[in-house]
Amino acid sequence: MSQTNHQVRLAARPTGLPDASSWEVTTEPVPAPASNEFVVEVSHLSIDPAMRGWMNDVRSYIPPVEIGAVMRALALGKVAASEHPDFAVGDHVSGAFGVQEFARSDGSGVNKIDPALAPLPTYLGALGITGITAYFGLLDVGRLKEGETVVVSGAAGSVGSVAGQIAKLKGCRVIGIAGGPEKCAWTVDELAFDAAIDYKSEDVRQALRGHAPDRVDVFFDNVGGDVLDAVLTRLARGARIVISGGISQYNAKQIRGPSNYLALIAARGTMTGFVVFDYLPRYQEAITELAGWLREGKLVSREHVVEGGVQAFPETLLKLFAGENIGKLVLAVP
Amino acid sequence: MSQTNHQVRLAARPTGLPDASSWEVTTEPVPAPASNEFVVEVSHLSIDPAMRGWMNDVRSYIPPVEIGAVMRALALGKVAASEHPDFAVGDHVSGAFGVQEFARSDGSGVNKIDPALAPLPTYLGALGITGITAYFGLLDVGRLKEGETVVVSGAAGSVGSVAGQIAKLKGCRVIGIAGGPEKCAWTVDELAFDAAIDYKSEDVRQALRGHAPDRVDVFFDNVGGDVLDAVLTRLARGARIVISGGISQYNAKQIRGPSNYLALIAARGTMTGFVVFDYLPRYQEAITELAGWLREGKLVSREHVVEGGVQAFPETLLKLFAGENIGKLVLAVP
Repeated sequence: MSQTNHQVRLAARPTGLPDASSWEVTTEPVPAPASNEFVVEVSHLSIDPAMRGWMNDVRSYIPPVEIGAVMRALALGKVAASEHPDFAVGDHVSGAFGVQEFARSDGSGVNKIDPALAPLPTYLGALGITGITAYFGLLDVGRLKEGETVVVSGAAGSVGSVAGQIAKLKGCRVIGIAGGPEKCAWTVDELAFDAAIDYKSEDVRQALRGHAPDRVDVFFDNVGGDVLDAVLTRLARGARIVISGGISQYNAKQIRGPSNYLALIAARGTMTGFVVFDYLPRYQEAITELAGWLREGKLVSREHVVEGGVQAFPETLLKLFAGENIGKLVLAVP
Repeated sequence: MSQTNHQVRLAARPTGLPDASSWEVTTEPVPAPASNEFVVEVSHLSIDPAMRGWMNDVRSYIPPVEIGAVMRALALGKVAASEHPDFAVGDHVSGAFGVQEFARSDGSGVNKIDPALAPLPTYLGALGITGITAYFGLLDVGRLKEGETVVVSGAAGSVGSVAGQIAKLKGCRVIGIAGGPEKCAWTVDELAFDAAIDYKSEDVRQALRGHAPDRVDVFFDNVGGDVLDAVLTRLARGARIVISGGISQYNAKQIRGPSNYLALIAARGTMTGFVVFDYLPRYQEAITELAGWLREGKLVSREHVVEGGVQAFPETLLKLFAGENIGKLVLAVP
């Protein structure tokens, strides 16, 4: 065990894309657990678009990360030392351990995971918050019904790729929207989406006319911006737009709202935001079903693992906003 | 009875505000009713923001008015000639008679009204589509609950003024947003709203902080634009935004979507569009309750009646977009 805990702290709130000045790498001695605590050695960090929002000093569903605090991150790790009756040295766990190599915990919000059931990074992908977000967003917020037409943006991303697959498993027609031929090919060839639209080279609005002849019943949106506007022109009556995120706008100095939102009137449509943490009491329901599909080979969980340790966090986060990842972006901590 | 029927027809689809070139006034002989028809002499035309949408050649909840056709309008009138068993000469009726002095009808979508129960223009106001829109928008789409905080934009307009009063009758705290001191004073002094915000002279976002200390549970929006963006910053958890209209954007060459729509995520909020015509089977339910409130003096229906006949229609429609009316804008046809 290293004697030093490297940590990435928020140094300043960025405008636009975070850069080097946003972060400070600090070191402190590896902590020792107090009574009813344990210390986790972090192995994998979940790199999420939501992190950008946590850096802003605005009221939201969770308090912002304070300046000088260790950056918030969901993570996986192994218990390295324990004074806690329920967590033993060697246990594999997931929790909000932050962008650091070692984290002290009293067990709040920490779950044990079984590396024999799935590769570790999958617990940040389809078996983690990613999969749970897709599951409840689509089925509960989106009230998906068999036979409906579903569009997913960020279709090759973490949540989008799972959401689209769930929609297929539930008997829907699924159209993915993603950036570039590789991502589009993956969603159709590997994830069995019915169609994919490359927003970088296609007119999304026109492409939807062809791929969604019966219009769009559910739009699971991770992106916002032009893509949201395009789908708004193609809503079926009673359409549900699930606002899971809006990654195209997270670094914008001036956020562009959906100009076509009045289409909600003619469609009798709904646009709804949600926060997966509200479903905490029902997480197990999602995990059980997702794990079953994974086991049966009906669900693909792909993780894009970057090696590099916590020091690589700032540049890895930028990969998300550049759209460089396919599947769930994970930073491995050696 | 005049021998000539003056009609206002759509001459061209406008970009931005309609102007003289948008309309053509034509004349034809007053029609005679065929078997199972009657002819209505129009007395009052309902002047509605939705008319602007009907002039656009886009797919919506109702087909656009064709170029050369008589402009669509809800209206009141008296049966002047009848070959219909259910409608007698002298009956007062409401229906989509269009911007013309006389209309032939087979009775579809036509209702008899009783001028002894309420002044005629009220049948285009609180006892007409206006009141019904406010009623179902607030109670059904907005799922209003006693004790909630409700914000209404276009608060001194036709639908807004009724919506705010219904919210008060249902035991809610009601904040109106309107343009100018006269409108604001009317909503507070005459309609008993708890507060009003003059968007022309106040910072709506800041004013809401004071007037909605518990944030906003239901926003009944008739306006869109900056007002919608301001309210989005003040949503309570589980807030419902009812998109009844967006008059600030109807004549915009480039519609401005709500930049703060991602606030729906943190609020777990919903933005829903609706079309009142869907509630046709339940109209009587709304009318019965609205008529009861009117009779008991608990509901004020104010109509802004412009005299002038169908030829005054083009300029009267512009009054809506200039915000010149308080209450329901009605054009009287002499």
